[in-house]
Amino acid sequence: MRLSRIAYAVTVSRWAPDARERLETAALDLFVANGYEQTTVAQIADRAGLNRATFFRHFADKREVLFGGEDVLVALFADGIRGAAADATLAECLRAAFAAADVALTPRQRAKAAQRVRVLAANTEVQERGLLKHARIARSIGAALRERGADELTARLGAEVGMLAFSVAVERWMQAGSDEPFSFHAASALSDLEERAAALVQPRLVQPSLGQPSVASAVRSSAKA
Amino acid sequence: MRLSRIAYAVTVSRWAPDARERLETAALDLFVANGYEQTTVAQIADRAGLNRATFFRHFADKREVLFGGEDVLVALFADGIRGAAADATLAECLRAAFAAADVALTPRQRAKAAQRVRVLAANTEVQERGLLKHARIARSIGAALRERGADELTARLGAEVGMLAFSVAVERWMQAGSDEPFSFHAASALSDLEERAAALVQPRLVQPSLGQPSVASAVRSSAKA
Repeated sequence: MRLSRIAYAVTVSRWAPDARERLETAALDLFVANGYEQTTVAQIADRAGLNRATFFRHFADKREVLFGGEDVLVALFADGIRGAAADATLAECLRAAFAAADVALTPRQRAKAAQRVRVLAANTEVQERGLLKHARIARSIGAALRERGADELTARLGAEVGMLAFSVAVERWMQAGSDEPFSFHAASALSDLEERAAALVQPRLVQPSLGQPSVASAVRSSAKA
Repeated sequence: MRLSRIAYAVTVSRWAPDARERLETAALDLFVANGYEQTTVAQIADRAGLNRATFFRHFADKREVLFGGEDVLVALFADGIRGAAADATLAECLRAAFAAADVALTPRQRAKAAQRVRVLAANTEVQERGLLKHARIARSIGAALRERGADELTARLGAEVGMLAFSVAVERWMQAGSDEPFSFHAASALSDLEERAAALVQPRLVQPSLGQPSVASAVRSSAKA
């Protein structure tokens, strides 16, 4: 059922790539040039050479141009986790989620990601919507981990670390000069976070301390040695 | 400067505990009984035996009754981290943040926490405000960790894990039958999460797998042994 939803989303965008793509491109160009609030659906349709009715066949409102990919990501992440090997570790489950998302996070989307970030930075209301989207994707990761038998805290930790890796990966993917797939950046962001997570739980004496050690603590250390 | 802000907040609530407390109690009772949307400031003031002007001396609007503690928590967490020992680990920095918050998360606040949760569960708009609050506290933890020299990813991971520990701790604190301070639940939530974080990064063969191992994987394991 989930998979058919994704197949639908991917197929629809394959069958009608032109109108949707043109509307998205027109909307993002106008949001960046004139501001999100100031841009109307009529202007977007006009710039795309289409009419308002066509806009509303593809998007519920102009906000959906920014967040329309949310449902697809929610479903792809969950399916990736469901499809991971039965003996997959938590980190491997997250990698499977990110690998599944490559189909939606195309190079074409990458080119638009920087515009989305600029629009979000300029608009608080839209940022709030972004937080809701983030929370919804996190819940979907947590639910998929629970389905596999992860306990409550592991599922919630997996969801938070997964979403942090996702955010970091989107930033790197957006800024990268080359066309590596999204999952490449996601896997490397996750590895970097795993390294930090290990430092979180390392016993004090083998962990590099945070902050400059004070003279007093240096004296204490040498006294102990 | 930060400390003076906290001292101010704590002192103000000490000097005028009655009016603020009564307004908060009245507001939460009405939100739970009649719904958040349906409750007016006039009704809150009336139930507290005060007038609207007094309400607005203590709260900017009725939403602030739910989230007024945010500024205080932001400052307390950051100060706790700043005050941690120079050689503190990331986990110790987070513990210091939670310990600093005990002054604001009093038994009296604990009694009101369950009401707040009920109001939030019933109101989407207020939930969105809750996400913004959560994001703002996370940013403040991240900034305090960066100030101590934590690298970007460590600061962001510390902020996310810290906020997850905070959420779990608030749930346990709220539901606890006894009066242990908030920091007690926070330290135990953090320990539990540290354990899961260790499992995230453990090599595959020593980590308990997520999900039921399939027959195929059981066969593979026994073949390796």
